[in-house]
Formats: sequence, C-alpha cells, structure tokens
Amino acid sequence: MKFSINRDLLLQNLFAVSKALSTKVQMPVLTGIKIEVTKNNIVMTASNNEISIQAKIEDRKLLRIEEEGAFVAPGKYLIELVKKTESKDIDFISYEDNSIKILADRSDFTLKGLDKDNYPIISFDESKTFITIDAANLKQIIRKSTFAASVSEARVILTGVSFQTSGAEMKVVSTDSYRLSRKVLVFDHEYPEIKIVIPAKCLDEFNKIVEEGEDVIEIHFSKTKALFKYKDLKYLTRLIDGTFPNTDALIPTQFLTSVKFNKNELISSVERVSIFNSNEASNIIKFTLNADKTCEITSTTNEIGDAKEELNLLECSDPIQFQITFSSAYFLEALRAFNSSEVEIHFTGEIKPFIITGDYDVNLIELILPVRAA
Amino acid sequence: MKFSINRDLLLQNLFAVSKALSTKVQMPVLTGIKIEVTKNNIVMTASNNEISIQAKIEDRKLLRIEEEGAFVAPGKYLIELVKKTESKDIDFISYEDNSIKILADRSDFTLKGLDKDNYPIISFDESKTFITIDAANLKQIIRKSTFAASVSEARVILTGVSFQTSGAEMKVVSTDSYRLSRKVLVFDHEYPEIKIVIPAKCLDEFNKIVEEGEDVIEIHFSKTKALFKYKDLKYLTRLIDGTFPNTDALIPTQFLTSVKFNKNELISSVERVSIFNSNEASNIIKFTLNADKTCEITSTTNEIGDAKEELNLLECSDPIQFQITFSSAYFLEALRAFNSSEVEIHFTGEIKPFIITGDYDVNLIELILPVRAA
Repeated sequence: MKFSINRDLLLQNLFAVSKALSTKVQMPVLTGIKIEVTKNNIVMTASNNEISIQAKIEDRKLLRIEEEGAFVAPGKYLIELVKKTESKDIDFISYEDNSIKILADRSDFTLKGLDKDNYPIISFDESKTFITIDAANLKQIIRKSTFAASVSEARVILTGVSFQTSGAEMKVVSTDSYRLSRKVLVFDHEYPEIKIVIPAKCLDEFNKIVEEGEDVIEIHFSKTKALFKYKDLKYLTRLIDGTFPNTDALIPTQFLTSVKFNKNELISSVERVSIFNSNEASNIIKFTLNADKTCEITSTTNEIGDAKEELNLLECSDPIQFQITFSSAYFLEALRAFNSSEVEIHFTGEIKPFIITGDYDVNLIELILPVRAA
Repeated sequence: MKFSINRDLLLQNLFAVSKALSTKVQMPVLTGIKIEVTKNNIVMTASNNEISIQAKIEDRKLLRIEEEGAFVAPGKYLIELVKKTESKDIDFISYEDNSIKILADRSDFTLKGLDKDNYPIISFDESKTFITIDAANLKQIIRKSTFAASVSEARVILTGVSFQTSGAEMKVVSTDSYRLSRKVLVFDHEYPEIKIVIPAKCLDEFNKIVEEGEDVIEIHFSKTKALFKYKDLKYLTRLIDGTFPNTDALIPTQFLTSVKFNKNELISSVERVSIFNSNEASNIIKFTLNADKTCEITSTTNEIGDAKEELNLLECSDPIQFQITFSSAYFLEALRAFNSSEVEIHFTGEIKPFIITGDYDVNLIELILPVRAA
C-alpha cells in the first residue's frame, strides 16, 4: 500500500475520527485508526464501544494513490506525528509485517502497525428512511438537551436523549428526574414513526465534530444504531435499549405567575449569589417575589456567609408574594440553553416544578423541580 | 472599618497577592487575605510558608477611606466575588465579629472573616543594599534558569537558583546535576558580595506577577529572605540554607567541534523525533554528525517504532564522525531558553557534557550531560 496525501487534509480527517478512538486496552486494535486505500479513495475508521466514525477522502488533487491496501496505525502516535509535521504532503507505505513507513520532508518514521485482521467489521450502512436537518440546527438541539440527561447509571434510559416523531413533529427530551429539557421540532413533511434514545455523551461527542454552517445532516436509524451523515463523515452511535418515560404530563400549562428577566443579568446574579456554595452539591438558592413586584435571590452558607441579589423584573403577569428554593447549578444550565435575550419563568407553586421559556427559542421548555428548603 | 474602592484596581491587586495564598489547612488564617486600612492607604497581604506578598493601594481617585481598621477575608471567596461583580466600585464594611459586608450595585454579600489577631506578623523591611534590575531582564533570567533546577528534594540546595555577585558581575546558576544553566550579568558598578539560593518555584511564582515592561525591580537581601520590590508590590521569598556547589569547573572551554543550527528548525526536528517516547522518562535521542557534515537525530522505541530526522547544518567548525545520546526533554528545555534565532552546540566528547550558546543570549550557557546509550 502506498499513497501520498496533503498534510492538512489528512490531519483534519484524523482529528474527526479520533473522537471515536478507544483509550481502553481491553481491545488494543481499537486504539488504532484503520486506513483503507482503494483505487479511488481512502477510508479512515475509528471505533470504541459507544461510537464509530468513518471518514472518506477522495479529493484527487490532494491525494495520490499508488498502491491499494490497508493498515491500522496507533491513533495517538499517528495524529501526534502528522500534527508536528510541517511538510505540504506526507507519503505512506505499508508492509507485510504491519509496519508503516511515513515520510515527510526530512523526517522518516517507521511506525509499528496493529494487526488489521483483528479490526472489527463495522457496518456504516444507510437506511431507506432518514431525517435531514441542517447542521447549525442539530448542533443547537444537542446543546440544549444533553446537559439535562442523567449522569447516573441508576436508570440507564435517562442517560440518553429521547427522539420521538409523530407526524411532522419530533420531540427531543432529556431528564435526570430533577429537571427536564424538551424541544419540539416541526418539519415540513411527515416522517415515519421514530422512537429512539441516543446516549447523551455520544451526542456531545458528535457535536464536537459538527461545525456551525449550512451543511445538511442525514440521520439514519436501525434497531440498535443511529448513523449521522455529515460532509464526508459517518458517525455511528449505539442506542439505549428500553422505553423512555412519557414526560408530557409533567409539564405544567397553568401558572400562578410568570416573570420576565434579561437573561444575562439573571445569569450574572445567580452566579454571584452561588459563589459561596459553588463547591457544594446542595447549591440551593431561594427566589423571592414580593407583592410589590420587587424580587431577590438569596443564599446562605453557614461557614462562609450570606449573599443577596436584587433582580430587575422586566414583566410580571400576576404580582404575588411567592418564594421557591432550587438548585442554582440546574437553573444556570437551563438558562444558558436559551438563545433569547429575555427569558420568562413560569411558576406553578412553591413546591411545584417551574418552567422557563424564551421568545426566540421556539418550542423549547426547560423544567426544574424545586428543592424543599432545609 | 469602611472604604470604597474601584473594582478593577482591587481585582488586579487581589490577583497579585493571591499567588501567595495558602491552600493548606494547617494554618487556616493563611487561606485569607489580610486587608489593613489606614488614613492614607490600603495594604493587602497574603502568605504561605514559601512566599509572602504585600500590595499597597493609595490612589485617592479610586479609593475612598471612611474608617480605619483591618480584617482577614477568605481569599478564594473574596476574589471570586470581586471577579463576578460588574459594578464600578465596591464598598467594604467590617464588624467586631469579624464579618465583612460587601456591597456592589444590587449585590449584598456578608462574608465571615478570619480572626485577624491570628494573622502572623510578617516583616517586609527593606535592606540598606539592594540590586536594581529592570523587569523585562529579570523575567528573562528567571525563565532561563528555573527549569534546570532539581525537582527532587534529595539535595535541597539544587531545588534553588544560585545568585552570586563578584564585583560588578552576578552569576545566576541552576542545576539538577544532569544539566546546568548559567547566566552572567554585568552591572555598571560593583555590588557588595551576595551569595544566596532562592527556591526555583518561588521565582516562577514571582514571574507570574511581573509584566514585560520597563519598571525597575529592587532586590533586597537579608540572611533568610529576599525581597523583590516591584511597582506597589513587595514579594518576599525564603532562601535555601546551604552552600551551592561550585559549578564553574564543570563548564568546558575546549571543544571537539561546534555546530550551528536554526533554533526553531532544530526544536521542531527534536520534537518530532521524540514523539514515540514522549511519555517515557528515558526519552533518549541519538545525535550523529558525519564527516561529510551531514547530520541526523534518531530515536528507537521498541513497541512503537523508529524516527529519523535529517538536520540542516548552518555551520560546522570541525567536520568529524561523532555521535552522542542524551535526553530530548532536557535538550528541548535548554533550546527554548534561548532568544537567539540560531544556536551553537559545542561538543567535547561522545560521553562528555556539551554546551549550547546563542549570539543574542550574551553570557548564557546551557549544559547537558549525555546518557550512556543502552
């Protein structure tokens, strides 16, 4: 096997597939990147138990194939080496004993390859039906949902994000049972029924590859996998088996009062009032709304001190005397999920969940459960 | 005690003194910053066992003192709080029970202070004789010496950097016994004899505070301390007790051959050839000079592979067949200490120390001991 390739193009694709490189030694061959060279293109693959990524390079101006073949190179060293190389092109030659010769300018590397016969066969087959969505939109949806998924394996299904279609609508829901994020997408045509749960961390990894932009992403589904097609990349993730809880009934529709804030001012206030308990799991703050429409957030940390922030209210639907305690960390994560410059908080009761909405975040609801004050 | 101060000025000084904040709980009061308010100024102090830093603020335009007094505030929370505050000015009020009220715009914090009577008395007295040196110059000297000091406590004296005057000269030397860095400074007048060893890590901490610029730094000496006066800051560091070895005899003056390289090209080549053993303590590379003036660096790592770099020689004083093995990590650190764009390596023998010099780094010598090849 012998080919020559543009260094920048190679590096960019190595970075993309490296997101799936395994760091575990249970299956050593998965610490490698498989490179298959055929007459017309190069296909690079990396995989771990969660995700697999495949990149296809076929730009004939930047790639010169002299001999077909395949090898598996140690991912970490291959990437480090290409990164440190300054030459325009890099030559690869692989040998029967799995060793790989890499030549760049005055550098001459010989890398011991992994046994390509041990590399698992991974199917990146596309399905007949798939959803298309533009990259910028999908990136946002992932960003706004994964943070609310559970990080505990106690209920594995909650470590995923649920994607469920119904006609031309798709609900994207995540919850760790203390808070919930729901975004409803409306397409311009109906899709067949899809009801899957994708591990939140696999979505986060995918988001690291996706660039803001107008590229269209195809999402293909099988019973156990979802395949994202993005540019020349195929990103394959396992699904979580099981039934995601029906959360629609949890989301309140009747409210005691709704209050509107400037989002960035609110975030700054909550950050400040949380300084003294930022290290504690129980980072509880108290929100108080007074009948005269004044409003404050307070926190008390026995050993360190007290903090109080007065808030500017932009609007208040029903002036009432009201207070509620909740996690400032969950609240901040929810607020940061909004693009709107103003957010509205809708309360249903002092010990009942409240929801957050924003005018420019269509069909997005963030829900937070209160914490009973000590 | 009551005062009002410009937020940015306060934060800048808090950052400076925070370098001396203790994170250890042996003496809780040292996790605090002591703030003393007199009629004309504010003095902030932080200290740990190694260093103490004092900042004096007396800008009457940015500071309004209403009542004198003192308090010790938990350093971490005070800094976090000021950092997160967006108001122009911040008001401080301290009370008999050690609590501190901090007001900024619509924020109202009450911080539990530490007992100011427990704060140690630290003398920042200046000495009669002191050395003056400009900030940019001292910053360079520190950067070029501390890396070569020992990190092992086996010989404590080698964890420091030796400063020794003789007439109008000062030698700055550090060594971990595998490599050595020596810079000789020449002043325009003679100084009384100084012979001290400052802990390398205390110098590194000081360098984080010093900005590039034309400010003059005064270095005051006592038997157990060195005091750096820089702008409105006093930086006090302990000295290491003991006698620093006389290293002058170790530095060769007769050479077999000297070879000149473009520094950045050399660094890139050494970095690449070290990729395969970058994680190993024994990151040994072999340098080979051939009689025809060609030159290469190689490395072999059994499990990963081989690397070879051909080098461009700018000059070679004596073309000989020569090879030597040494640590690539030590070599890279030494090379990066130079500002010169070209560096000269002077060899004395295949199992003898070599030195590195650079035309624009006057009186700087970096020495490295070879490693016997396996």
